[in-house]
Amino acid sequence: MIERIAILGTGLLGTSVGLALRAAGFQGAIAGWNRSPEQARMALAMGALDSVAADPLEAARGAQITLLAVPIYATLDFMEKLAEVLGPDQLVTDVGSTKRVISEAAGRLFNKPDRAAFLPGHPMAGKERGGAELADALLFRGAVWLFTDDAAAERSVGGAELVSGWRELVADMGAKTLDLDPVRHDELVAWVSHLPQFVATALSALLEDEVGDAPELKDVGGRGLREMTRLGASPFSMWRDIAYTNTEAVEAALLALEQRLGLLRENLRTPALRDEFERANRFRKE
Amino acid sequence: MIERIAILGTGLLGTSVGLALRAAGFQGAIAGWNRSPEQARMALAMGALDSVAADPLEAARGAQITLLAVPIYATLDFMEKLAEVLGPDQLVTDVGSTKRVISEAAGRLFNKPDRAAFLPGHPMAGKERGGAELADALLFRGAVWLFTDDAAAERSVGGAELVSGWRELVADMGAKTLDLDPVRHDELVAWVSHLPQFVATALSALLEDEVGDAPELKDVGGRGLREMTRLGASPFSMWRDIAYTNTEAVEAALLALEQRLGLLRENLRTPALRDEFERANRFRKE
Repeated sequence: MIERIAILGTGLLGTSVGLALRAAGFQGAIAGWNRSPEQARMALAMGALDSVAADPLEAARGAQITLLAVPIYATLDFMEKLAEVLGPDQLVTDVGSTKRVISEAAGRLFNKPDRAAFLPGHPMAGKERGGAELADALLFRGAVWLFTDDAAAERSVGGAELVSGWRELVADMGAKTLDLDPVRHDELVAWVSHLPQFVATALSALLEDEVGDAPELKDVGGRGLREMTRLGASPFSMWRDIAYTNTEAVEAALLALEQRLGLLRENLRTPALRDEFERANRFRKE
Repeated sequence: MIERIAILGTGLLGTSVGLALRAAGFQGAIAGWNRSPEQARMALAMGALDSVAADPLEAARGAQITLLAVPIYATLDFMEKLAEVLGPDQLVTDVGSTKRVISEAAGRLFNKPDRAAFLPGHPMAGKERGGAELADALLFRGAVWLFTDDAAAERSVGGAELVSGWRELVADMGAKTLDLDPVRHDELVAWVSHLPQFVATALSALLEDEVGDAPELKDVGGRGLREMTRLGASPFSMWRDIAYTNTEAVEAALLALEQRLGLLRENLRTPALRDEFERANRFRKE
């Protein structure tokens, strides 16, 4: 029975988790901490938290489950510190967008009989802009919430029960869970999440150079252009860590798309263009 | 005073124009023709037309304004035929996505004192799937409707009055009009419309190869992936003509994006990644 949760990092995701837990009827205590205290106070005012903690380690020590909702390198820093202060009746989980380095740290620092459990997690939900003010109790409804290392987390004495408690809460928030190997996770999200982001960034940056001085021309592109560049608003601060911790898989995906665009460019007037449209149509077939 | 309009091609755009004209209070007659008669009958049933014509040239002969809402090469075919049968008190306009070849044909076939007027037009609105059944009276609300060769169309005796009548109706449908030189038009839409489409096609086709055999993995990408691949559903039948009639500008835009993606790929761990994100952020700044 989960009764005490700590959320470290009350930006868009952390605050949305608090709101979604409440919307799902979670009755326990939710303590929150954020590096910038006003974000934590906003999360409190929005009803995502019961209390704001001054010390993140203290908040985690008092919780059965600690959710790390900070960028990846900050997650790794917290893992080092939390491994020292938590015990086998506690679970730490996260929302980081790459899982290989986090899974490695979890194996090294957690998931032993006398240690706290660590369950690497990754909800496939977000917005192109961050911050508690954009948090949404429905953010995870219908979204996929990926986990890796579920079995490893159960090596901790209290792990199995806490893992199943967290998975239930994730389902209560409306997400569909899916388990993947961490390396396979990073390869997969390189294709379906990181590649689309980096394409939107490159396309937006290119268009800024080409038509950025004539804002009325952006309107000309209509809905298609708006959708294809919406992720161009995503902050570097979040994507830097992803680029650093999934470099090879992202490089491979980008190179494959460059080649694909080159193929299309060389075939604008050949039947190969039809093949490429038909393949794309298949991907979008309901 | 415009009282008789013919719409040749009652797919998504042609039918939406009929619905939008009615929604804007247009009281005159709207005759429609479509190569496949059931699309025309559907447009009639939806209230976009008053009558279905068996012969498109006959319908145009009876109208003050004929709207060509067919693919570009079909538009060029109609232009050849209509130039022979229409007179200086009639206007033809179109919705084609490239304007250079249409503008050239208009100069050769129309826009002389004793000929009908031709006003090349391009509403920046559409959906990733076509057909009368998806038509929408609000499709043009807030959209940009581009025109080229406005002055040339006024060389026809009745051109000036008919051109201003059509522009008024376009404004009544809720669109914002913008005039461009036809070559500049094609360069501009290569960046803001054709490039996003071809990127979505290449990305969707690549992902079909990479994850297409595991449909549950498409869910993992969430909203970002859905938006970045929505245009992947666009039909080749429409984009073939665009690729053929704007080849050089599209090639240049694709090559520029390939280089941009390559730059990003080589800089996943350098400060240049921050610059690129910041440039992209500027493009999306409200």
